[in-house]
Amino acid sequence: MTTIRLPGLVDAHVHLREPGYEHKEDFYSGTAAALAGGVVTVLDMPNTVPPTGTPELLADKAQRAAGKAVCDVGLFVGATTSYLDAYLPVAERACGLKIYVSDTFGSLRIESLSLMQRFFRSWAERAEGIGFRTRGAAAGLGPIAVHAEELMLPVCLALSKLYDVPLHVVHVTRRSEIELIRAAKERGWPVTCEATPHHLLLSSEDAARLGPLGDMRPRLASPDDVAALWENLETIDLFATDHAPHTLAEKGITAQATQPPPGVPGVETMLPLLLTAVHAGRLTLDDVIERCAHAPRRIYGLPEPPESYVEVDVDAVYRLEDGQMKTRCGWTPFAGQEVWGRVTRVVLRGQEVYAGGEVTALPGTGRVLFHPEQAR
Amino acid sequence: MTTIRLPGLVDAHVHLREPGYEHKEDFYSGTAAALAGGVVTVLDMPNTVPPTGTPELLADKAQRAAGKAVCDVGLFVGATTSYLDAYLPVAERACGLKIYVSDTFGSLRIESLSLMQRFFRSWAERAEGIGFRTRGAAAGLGPIAVHAEELMLPVCLALSKLYDVPLHVVHVTRRSEIELIRAAKERGWPVTCEATPHHLLLSSEDAARLGPLGDMRPRLASPDDVAALWENLETIDLFATDHAPHTLAEKGITAQATQPPPGVPGVETMLPLLLTAVHAGRLTLDDVIERCAHAPRRIYGLPEPPESYVEVDVDAVYRLEDGQMKTRCGWTPFAGQEVWGRVTRVVLRGQEVYAGGEVTALPGTGRVLFHPEQAR
Repeated sequence: MTTIRLPGLVDAHVHLREPGYEHKEDFYSGTAAALAGGVVTVLDMPNTVPPTGTPELLADKAQRAAGKAVCDVGLFVGATTSYLDAYLPVAERACGLKIYVSDTFGSLRIESLSLMQRFFRSWAERAEGIGFRTRGAAAGLGPIAVHAEELMLPVCLALSKLYDVPLHVVHVTRRSEIELIRAAKERGWPVTCEATPHHLLLSSEDAARLGPLGDMRPRLASPDDVAALWENLETIDLFATDHAPHTLAEKGITAQATQPPPGVPGVETMLPLLLTAVHAGRLTLDDVIERCAHAPRRIYGLPEPPESYVEVDVDAVYRLEDGQMKTRCGWTPFAGQEVWGRVTRVVLRGQEVYAGGEVTALPGTGRVLFHPEQAR
Repeated sequence: MTTIRLPGLVDAHVHLREPGYEHKEDFYSGTAAALAGGVVTVLDMPNTVPPTGTPELLADKAQRAAGKAVCDVGLFVGATTSYLDAYLPVAERACGLKIYVSDTFGSLRIESLSLMQRFFRSWAERAEGIGFRTRGAAAGLGPIAVHAEELMLPVCLALSKLYDVPLHVVHVTRRSEIELIRAAKERGWPVTCEATPHHLLLSSEDAARLGPLGDMRPRLASPDDVAALWENLETIDLFATDHAPHTLAEKGITAQATQPPPGVPGVETMLPLLLTAVHAGRLTLDDVIERCAHAPRRIYGLPEPPESYVEVDVDAVYRLEDGQMKTRCGWTPFAGQEVWGRVTRVVLRGQEVYAGGEVTALPGTGRVLFHPEQAR
């Protein structure tokens, strides 16, 4: 057994489903799954019910997270047609603003130029005087994170550049998209991006085998698209999972489902999957640490928790199985896959929070980032 | 009677419908209508049948125009999913490349990022060494002109900026759009734009009265959108008509039509409508000359024909009537409107081509721009 110590990881893209979908996940089960994957900080998306679109709803979500989380949680506010930019007064308490410009789970898609202009302009105006954390400041606002596929990607790039707002493009999947982001970066545009393990390790050729358990947004892409992600690894700033749990019944596995919702869990399988890629020589360990720890902290301006680390037995070889999963949904699209590397222990701020396959921290041990009154 | 002399005008956006739709218009009837409106140069769009997407189809269209036109004609090539960028070898013989990213008459709409990248990249590569006419060169390529409404506008802005291709946005209609173009211009992006007389002078409040005769793409916009165009007159580089004739039968006026096609004629009513706006104090005569002559020649790198001018009786007051129209479709959405200013005479390269309400030039008097072998 060879144990290595890694910095506590960040999953900058998770859906912990609370409030509204607690039968899929909640702040306890989702952060427990995070710890099992060596993740000590998650950034939670706003497409809950109700969506996180107002100061009150952000405060409510922060209170829920503060009571239950066993790892640290940052919360996105979301752009919606119903609340518009009502989140602005508390913009600095969010890890960033999420805008859905493409088809997704839920109903937050924005389809109007004037609304998009409003969201970018008002985020930029709100940052006046306090700046953006993404530019190295400890305070200020986070970036605008966008689900922007296909032609929606240049929409967001143009608005980001014209209104001078840092843009983070979540779960990039296509050759056209990663090449466009590379072109924008080469010209100094303020853009960063992420890729998920499932889009890096699966393709449309796996879709038939996986059925609803391989259906997410963006969909699994073509092998050429997957190859483009690997060719442009230097353009991918970070890895994040888009952890999006739905129950096996909702997915049509243990019950009839006419329209299974898109989305797959991932927060607790990211690290072993990536370490397996390291074992196979496709990534270096530094690639993983940079993209799962340093880059997300830099891009979102997340504080580094002191005395925090993850111990991994890199000799452990085992198969991922649904029964091992701590996510409430209880499955993984990678079930049956052999992986290298097992998280054996997680320490957060000097406290052992995970060991021997079990969460040892009490609910509420995690902090809600950018919410000083929630810190103890 | 007070006669003033104007430079020969340009209508940088017309659909002369040949080949494929000669029952609506052809190169003779369309250019005759142009002369009646003081227009000595028209730029013809590629959404004919077949579309102008290959060297052979451009040559065929040039030959048709050379045989029939009574004013000068520039021809766009068009981006299509069927011919892709097959036009590239003759790119310098087109006045520009037209891309439809939004809903229009015909079926040339492009909806994929990888295709859009291909069109912008390959146009940029083709310009290597020969440059763009839009940058003051006599030779080179024209701009990429786009029908890009709403979110499709920032798509084109981003691709134009990232691949360094001059962009011309046709028929801008919305506040959001003109404000975004203004923002891009303020930051030095290579973009120009146009507005049509109908979008400047009509609004959605006229749509019910006009029925199918007031239906075009983009649709008539809200009064606030129209006000935004006037507020941002300095951002509107040129006026062009999007002259898009359909017969009264097709429009459902003289026959049953379940789905009248969008589009209205305009090439011969632009000047009197704009002179009426001058009379009303909404524009200056210099505004009109800049936007209907100098700017389109500069943006598209069009040669100025020597010894060419238009004589206008600015005291003439009359009503626009369908029966006066020289366009084959024989109607105008402005029928019944009182206007100031009548074209009395047009001289092209020293030759009187229009006088006393009649075209005096023979078919073939007009030249096909950028096609040296068609010039006599």
